[in-house]
Amino acid sequence: MFTHTQALQFEAKPDGPDPAFARRMQEILGGQWGEMTVATQYLLQGWNCRLPGKYKDMLLAIGTEELAHVEMIVTMIDRLLDHQPLKPDASDRSKEAAAGFGQVNPQHAIANGGGAYYKDSMGVPWSGGYVTASGNLMADFHYNATAEMQGRLQVSRLYNMTDDPGVKEMLRFLITRDHMHQNQWLAAIEELKSDGLEGIPVPEAFPLDEEQSEYSYAFIQASDGAEAAAGRWASGPAPDGRGQFTARAIEATADAPVLPPGDPRLFGTPQTEAHGLLQKAKDMLT
Amino acid sequence: MFTHTQALQFEAKPDGPDPAFARRMQEILGGQWGEMTVATQYLLQGWNCRLPGKYKDMLLAIGTEELAHVEMIVTMIDRLLDHQPLKPDASDRSKEAAAGFGQVNPQHAIANGGGAYYKDSMGVPWSGGYVTASGNLMADFHYNATAEMQGRLQVSRLYNMTDDPGVKEMLRFLITRDHMHQNQWLAAIEELKSDGLEGIPVPEAFPLDEEQSEYSYAFIQASDGAEAAAGRWASGPAPDGRGQFTARAIEATADAPVLPPGDPRLFGTPQTEAHGLLQKAKDMLT
Amino acid sequence: MFTHTQALQFEAKPDGPDPAFARRMQEILGGQWGEMTVATQYLLQGWNCRLPGKYKDMLLAIGTEELAHVEMIVTMIDRLLDHQPLKPDASDRSKEAAAGFGQVNPQHAIANGGGAYYKDSMGVPWSGGYVTASGNLMADFHYNATAEMQGRLQVSRLYNMTDDPGVKEMLRFLITRDHMHQNQWLAAIEELKSDGLEGIPVPEAFPLDEEQSEYSYAFIQASDGAEAAAGRWASGPAPDGRGQFTARAIEATADAPVLPPGDPRLFGTPQTEAHGLLQKAKDMLT
Amino acid sequence: MFTHTQALQFEAKPDGPDPAFARRMQEILGGQWGEMTVATQYLLQGWNCRLPGKYKDMLLAIGTEELAHVEMIVTMIDRLLDHQPLKPDASDRSKEAAAGFGQVNPQHAIANGGGAYYKDSMGVPWSGGYVTASGNLMADFHYNATAEMQGRLQVSRLYNMTDDPGVKEMLRFLITRDHMHQNQWLAAIEELKSDGLEGIPVPEAFPLDEEQSEYSYAFIQASDGAEAAAGRWASGPAPDGRGQFTARAIEATADAPVLPPGDPRLFGTPQTEAHGLLQKAKDMLT
Amino acid sequence: MFTHTQALQFEAKPDGPDPAFARRMQEILGGQWGEMTVATQYLLQGWNCRLPGKYKDMLLAIGTEELAHVEMIVTMIDRLLDHQPLKPDASDRSKEAAAGFGQVNPQHAIANGGGAYYKDSMGVPWSGGYVTASGNLMADFHYNATAEMQGRLQVSRLYNMTDDPGVKEMLRFLITRDHMHQNQWLAAIEELKSDGLEGIPVPEAFPLDEEQSEYSYAFIQASDGAEAAAGRWASGPAPDGRGQFTARAIEATADAPVLPPGDPRLFGTPQTEAHGLLQKAKDMLT
Amino acid sequence: MFTHTQALQFEAKPDGPDPAFARRMQEILGGQWGEMTVATQYLLQGWNCRLPGKYKDMLLAIGTEELAHVEMIVTMIDRLLDHQPLKPDASDRSKEAAAGFGQVNPQHAIANGGGAYYKDSMGVPWSGGYVTASGNLMADFHYNATAEMQGRLQVSRLYNMTDDPGVKEMLRFLITRDHMHQNQWLAAIEELKSDGLEGIPVPEAFPLDEEQSEYSYAFIQASDGAEAAAGRWASGPAPDGRGQFTARAIEATADAPVLPPGDPRLFGTPQTEAHGLLQKAKDMLT
Repeated sequence: MFTHTQALQFEAKPDGPDPAFARRMQEILGGQWGEMTVATQYLLQGWNCRLPGKYKDMLLAIGTEELAHVEMIVTMIDRLLDHQPLKPDASDRSKEAAAGFGQVNPQHAIANGGGAYYKDSMGVPWSGGYVTASGNLMADFHYNATAEMQGRLQVSRLYNMTDDPGVKEMLRFLITRDHMHQNQWLAAIEELKSDGLEGIPVPEAFPLDEEQSEYSYAFIQASDGAEAAAGRWASGPAPDGRGQFTARAIEATADAPVLPPGDPRLFGTPQTEAHGLLQKAKDMLT
Repeated sequence: MFTHTQALQFEAKPDGPDPAFARRMQEILGGQWGEMTVATQYLLQGWNCRLPGKYKDMLLAIGTEELAHVEMIVTMIDRLLDHQPLKPDASDRSKEAAAGFGQVNPQHAIANGGGAYYKDSMGVPWSGGYVTASGNLMADFHYNATAEMQGRLQVSRLYNMTDDPGVKEMLRFLITRDHMHQNQWLAAIEELKSDGLEGIPVPEAFPLDEEQSEYSYAFIQASDGAEAAAGRWASGPAPDGRGQFTARAIEATADAPVLPPGDPRLFGTPQTEAHGLLQKAKDMLT
Repeated sequence: MFTHTQALQFEAKPDGPDPAFARRMQEILGGQWGEMTVATQYLLQGWNCRLPGKYKDMLLAIGTEELAHVEMIVTMIDRLLDHQPLKPDASDRSKEAAAGFGQVNPQHAIANGGGAYYKDSMGVPWSGGYVTASGNLMADFHYNATAEMQGRLQVSRLYNMTDDPGVKEMLRFLITRDHMHQNQWLAAIEELKSDGLEGIPVPEAFPLDEEQSEYSYAFIQASDGAEAAAGRWASGPAPDGRGQFTARAIEATADAPVLPPGDPRLFGTPQTEAHGLLQKAKDMLT
Repeated sequence: MFTHTQALQFEAKPDGPDPAFARRMQEILGGQWGEMTVATQYLLQGWNCRLPGKYKDMLLAIGTEELAHVEMIVTMIDRLLDHQPLKPDASDRSKEAAAGFGQVNPQHAIANGGGAYYKDSMGVPWSGGYVTASGNLMADFHYNATAEMQGRLQVSRLYNMTDDPGVKEMLRFLITRDHMHQNQWLAAIEELKSDGLEGIPVPEAFPLDEEQSEYSYAFIQASDGAEAAAGRWASGPAPDGRGQFTARAIEATADAPVLPPGDPRLFGTPQTEAHGLLQKAKDMLT
Repeated sequence: MFTHTQALQFEAKPDGPDPAFARRMQEILGGQWGEMTVATQYLLQGWNCRLPGKYKDMLLAIGTEELAHVEMIVTMIDRLLDHQPLKPDASDRSKEAAAGFGQVNPQHAIANGGGAYYKDSMGVPWSGGYVTASGNLMADFHYNATAEMQGRLQVSRLYNMTDDPGVKEMLRFLITRDHMHQNQWLAAIEELKSDGLEGIPVPEAFPLDEEQSEYSYAFIQASDGAEAAAGRWASGPAPDGRGQFTARAIEATADAPVLPPGDPRLFGTPQTEAHGLLQKAKDMLT
Repeated sequence: MFTHTQALQFEAKPDGPDPAFARRMQEILGGQWGEMTVATQYLLQGWNCRLPGKYKDMLLAIGTEELAHVEMIVTMIDRLLDHQPLKPDASDRSKEAAAGFGQVNPQHAIANGGGAYYKDSMGVPWSGGYVTASGNLMADFHYNATAEMQGRLQVSRLYNMTDDPGVKEMLRFLITRDHMHQNQWLAAIEELKSDGLEGIPVPEAFPLDEEQSEYSYAFIQASDGAEAAAGRWASGPAPDGRGQFTARAIEATADAPVLPPGDPRLFGTPQTEAHGLLQKAKDMLT
C-alpha cells in the first residue's frame, strides 16, 4: 500500500523550454531502461519474492524510490514542453528554431497537450515485457545491476546533449542514484552468495552431474577472429571455481537432421510429393 | 560473413510427439531470454564494437554458436509437433489426450503447418527490442551474464516438465552451455576491469565530482520493511571501493511542483479556467 | 514521492491453488483495462495537470490507491500459482486435473517461477499505449469513467468463473471500489461543467462558427438498419443544448479523387505508365 | 456487406505539399484515437451486439460513416506527400526547407512510395488492441464518447498547426462530425438508461449486496494534496443516486502478506534457503 | 465512401457452440494473414494508387468485398461462443468438456462478453504493420497473391479441425473466394506486364547498368547442402529473360572492417582504452 | 551450424558521417522488409522444410547469405553514425547542420552509443511476426519473391536519397542481389510446379469439388469504379487453367443475422432487456 506526497524527492527547473530535449528525455522515462522499467520491476520482484526478510524489504524500498523518479522526470518533461512551436515560424530564421521544430515529438502536442507519456524517445510505448521477475534473485539482481548501468550510461549521454543548468542538475541527481544502485545490486549479489542462497552457475540447485561435462568449460570458436580465445574466458580457472576453461573449434556432433513427413491435413509441401510426382509422371505419359 | 553446415552442433530425438511441450519450448526459442535474443545480441555487440581485438572476436564467436542453438531448438520443436491432434478425438477418453489437445499452440498447425516460429510460449512475437548493444561493454556483459542465467533457469524448469529422454538430453546440452556462458561473461567482466577499460560505476569516465555526493552511497528506505537495511547494501564499504554505504528515510528536497500554464492552442483544461469562471459568473448573473 | 507499507489495503487468501484462474486474473492486472492502466494513468494525468488544486490532488489520490490494487492482485495470483502441475500426472485421471493442466499460462512457471507479471490473460505485455493523458480533463475523465466500467465488468465476469470464497472476497472488494470510482469520475465530470472549465463539445474553446454547421447535428445513415434513427441521437435536442438532431442518408459531396502523379525517384507504378505504354505500343508495332 | 463509391463524403485539396504535416495527420488516421479505431470499433460493437434494433443499427451506421473518414484522410495525406524532399537541397537555404526535411516520416517515402499507412505520427502501427467491444453497451458508449472527445481535441490541435486553407477545411469537417458524434453517444447513454437496459454502476445487474458496502462511496485520500476531497466526488449524493460520498485516509485492512514457499522444481530463491544456510553453516564449521 | 447492408454476403450457422474453434477462427480474422489484413490492405493500395483506372478500381472492389468477410467471420465466432463454460463443471466428466474448457480464449468471455475481436488465435492484436502498400503495384500484387495463398491454406487447415457442417460450409465459401483471389492477383500481375507498367526485376526502372553485374545472376552457396544448386535457380536462363544463372561459393570481397573510434561523450568502451591502459600501467608501477 | 569470418561479403566506406541517412538505412536492416526478415525467414523455412533435397538446401544457402547482408548494413550504419551532433551547434548556421540534427534517431546515441540496432527507420523494433514459414513452399516462395521486390524497391529509393559514393556502392550491391533473388524465387515457383509439388490454387490438394463453384471464378464488383472489371481478372481464362472468369455485382445470399442472446453471467446488454423494460414499465406505473 502506498501513500503519496506531492513534494518531490528532487526538483530542478529548466532555464527555458526545449521540446527537442523533452523528446530525448522520454528515453529514460518510458524506454527499455527507463524509470518505468526499474520502478515496476523492483516492486514486482519484491511482491513475488517468496522469501520474507531483507531481500524482499530492500526490493520494495528501492522500487518505491524509483516511482519518485518517474514523477520527477514527468515533471521535467512537462516544463520543457512549454512553448513548443506548433508550426514553422517564417519570421524566425535561426538555425536553432529550425532544428527545434524539426526534432520534436509531435505526439507531445497532438496527443498529450504538452505533457509526458510512457513511451520512449522514438514514440514506442513502454512494454510490460521489459520487466523480469524470475523468482531467482541471483538472476534478477544481475539484471537489476545491468539496468542501473544502462540507465546511468543513458543519463550520462543526455548530460552531454544539453547546456541547460537546471536540466543538468536533475540529470546529476539521477546519475548519482544510478551509481548508488549499481553498488546496491552488486552488494546484494555478494550477500546472496554469502547467505548460501544461490551461486554460479544459476540455478545452482540443478545437479551438475546432469550436465554434459565436456561442454561445461569449453569456449567454442565459431568465428575466425584471431584473438577470440585470448581472454580469461578461454583458459585458466572459471569464475565458478568448479573447472578450467578450454577452447576448441565448433564442431558438429550429429548429422544433418531428417524430419518426419508432415500431416497431410495441414497441406504442407512434403506430404504431397509422392502424389505430385505420380501425377507428373502420369501427365508425362498422357 | 557466415557459412552453414546442415550437420547439427548437437542433436537428440524425442521418443514421441508432444505438441504441448513444443509450445513450451517456444519460450527458449522466441521468448525474451531465448536463443534468438542471445544469438542476435552477441552478434550485434560484436559488429558494433569499436575496439578491435579479443572482445570483438569473442562476441562474434559466441553469437555464431548461439545461431546453432536456434537451429537445434527449431528442429526439436518440429519433431515434437508431429501428429498434433487437430480436433478432439471422441474415441480417446484418456486424460492425456484431453490435456494434450487443450494446451497446444493452434498457430503451430494453422499458421506454420507443423513447424516452429519466432514467438514465445504465449504466441507473442520475438522483438528486436529485446536486444541491447549499448556500446559500453561492461554494461552489456552484465546483461549477457543475466541472459545466460535467465536462460539456464528456464531450461532447467523445462527439464522438470518432460519425461522424454531425448528432449531431456538436448535440454542438458543447453543447460551445460548456459553454464559455460555464465562463466564466460563473468570472466569477461573481470578482464574489462583488469584491462582498465571500464569500472564501477558504469560509465566510469563520467566525472564523480559532478555527482551530488550525499546521494552516492545512501540506501533510501521508502518502504516499511523492517529488514530493508539489514544487508550489505546499506552499511559498510560499497563494492566500487569508493565510499561507505549509509541508510536514511526517503525525504523530499523540493516542494510540490507548480507547472506553467499550457498553450491555449492545445485546448487543455487549465488555460480556459479564467474564461470559464467568467462565463459561469455571467450565467449566474443573467 | 511515495512511501510504501507492506500491509495490504485488502487481503483475502484463496482456499487452494488454481493456476487456471491465476491466468485469468492477469487480465485485470496487465490487460488493457487492468489495474496497471488505471494506476499509471491517473498518476500521469495528475502529474501532467497544469491546473493546481482539487482535480490534480484527486487524480494523485486515486492513482496512488490503484497502486495498492496492483499489489493485491499480484499477491493473489502468486498464491493461486502454488502447486501448478508441471506435467500431466498419469495417476490423476480427473477431469479437473486435465483441464487444470491444459489452461495454465506456461510463462507463470517457465519465466516467472510461480509469480505474476505485467501481461494480460493471453500473455500480451501491458503497454504504455493503453494510457491517455490528453491535457483536457473532460476528455480524460470520460475515459476514466469508461475504464472503471470496463474494469467492474471484467471483475464481475471473473466472479462468475470461480467458486473459491477467498478469491470471491477479493473480487467483491475490487467490484466495490470500481463502483465508487465510476461515481467519482461522473461527479468530477459534473464538477468540470459547473466550474465552467469545459463543456460539450470537447474542446469547447474551439470556435463553433468554424464548424461546417450543416453537419453538426446530422445523424448519417450509412447502413440499412431500419431503426438506426429511432433513438434520441437522431431527433430532438442534442445533449449539448446547442442544436437539434436531424437524420439523413450518407451522400458524397465530392467526386472521386484524382491524385497527382508520383515522384519517379520512388519507382511507384504510375510514373512509368507513359513510358510503359509507349514501350508496349512499340512492341506491338514491331 | 458493404458497397463502395469512389466519390468522397468530403474533399478538400491542399494548396501545396507539406510532408511534415502529412506525418502529423497520421495521428488521426492510425493513432490510438484515430479514424481506424472508431471505424473498426463501432462496426465490431454493432456486429457483436446481441440485441437487435436501434442500438445495433445505429452502431453499424456510424461505423460505416467512419470508414469514409479513413478514406478522406488517406487521400489528404497522399496529396501532402507530393514533392517530399528526398535529401537536403544545398541550394535551398531557407529555414522551412531545413525544417521540412527534418521532420518528415522517412517511411512515407521508403516504404510507401509517397502514400499513407495505418500507423501513428511516430510510426507505431495501429493495433487491434485499441478496440473495445465489451458486450455491455453502457460501458462501450462511454468509451465511444471518449473517443470522439479525444478525436476532436486532436483535430483541433492539428488545426492550429497548419495555415493551408484546404487542409483546414477538411479538419473543420472532421471537427464538426466529432461534435455530432459526441452528442450522439451522450444521447445513446441516456437512451440506454431510459430503456432500463443499463445503469450506474455498470454492470447494474451485479447484485449490490455482494459489495463490501463500507467502500462503495468512500473517497480514499492516498496522496497529501490539500484539496483532494474538495470536489463533488467526496461529499454529497453520488451520481448513481444510491449513496452518499464520504472521505477517508487510505488504511491497511490486512498485514503484510506471507507467501507460501515456492516449488523447488522451479529453482526460485526461497526454496533453497534452508539448504543454503545449512551449507553455509557447514562451511563455517570446516 | 461506403454504404452497408446488414444482409450478409454469405451465412452459415453452426450446429452448436464451440468456443475452442472460435478461438482458432480468430486466426483468419485478426491474424497476420486474416481478413482484416486483406480488407484494409487492398483498400489502402487502392486509395494510394496514383494511376487512375482499372487497377485502382479493382483494388477498391476487392477490398470492399473483404470487409464483408470480416463481418461474416465475426458473426460466426459470436455464434460459436454461446454457452462457453465459465468454470470446470464437476458433474461433467467427459473428455470433451475438459478439453473444451481448457483451450478457450479467456478474453472472449472476460473482455468481450462473448464476442469476437481483432486479435489472432493466440491473442496478439492485429497490427497495421501487417499491411503493405508500396506504391509499386507489381511488388504489392505479389504480396496480395501470397496473402490469398496463405489465407486459403489456413482456412483449409481449419476445415480439418471441425466436424460442424455449418462451420464447414462457411469455410468452403472462404476457400472458394481465396481460390478466385489467387487467380485474380496472378492475372493482374500478367496485366501489369502486358501493359508495360512494370517488369522483373522490380523496380524495372532502376537502371540495370548501375548494378554490379557479376552478382546479378549468381546463386551463392553459403550452406553445404549437396543439392542447393540443383534447381532452376542456379543454371539456365533467369525468369527475367535478361541473364543466365550461375552458381558459386560465398566469398569475401573485403577484409574484416575496422570501425572508427567512438565519440567519448557517449561513454562507449573503446574511447577509454588508452586512458584505461595508462591507468593500469600506473597502478602496476605504484 | 554456422561458422563466421570477419571478412565481409561486400564492403564500401562512406565518404563521411551522415546520421540522418543512418536512420533511414535502419529500414532495410530492421524494417518489415529488411535483411533481418529475409535472413531469419529463409533459414526458418529451410529448417522447417520436411522435404529433404534441393529446396531445403537452397533455402539454407540463401538464408545464410542474407546474414552477411545484415552484417554489412550494421557496419555501414555504424560508420555513418560517427560524429553525430549531440546538440545544436550555435556556431554552425548551415542548413545542412540544422537538418542533420533534426532528423537523426536519438536512440542511436542515447541507447546504442553510436551503433545500429534491430529497429526500423521510425524506431519500431523488428518483430518475429514479420516472418512466415507456412510449411507450404508455393505460398512461401511467393512471399519470398515479394520480399525481394519490396526490398529492392526500398533500396532503390534509398539510392536516390544520398550522394555519398561509398554508400551508393553498397546500395548497388544490395540492389543487385535483390535482383538475383527475385529471379531465384520465381524460378523456384516454376520448379515446384514442374515437380508436381504444388499448383494453383494453393493448396492444390484441397479438393476443388468441396468449393462452392459459383464463386470460384467470379470477380465481384463491390465498388463503383467503372473499369474494375476491365482487366484480365474479370473475363477470359483464369491463370490456373481450370475455369473462366466472370464478373458480377456483390449481393447478399443471406438475411441480416440474428445472434442468440448472451450469457447473463457475462453482464452484456441484451440479457437484461426484458428485466429492464419490466423495470421501466413499473417505473411508469408508479
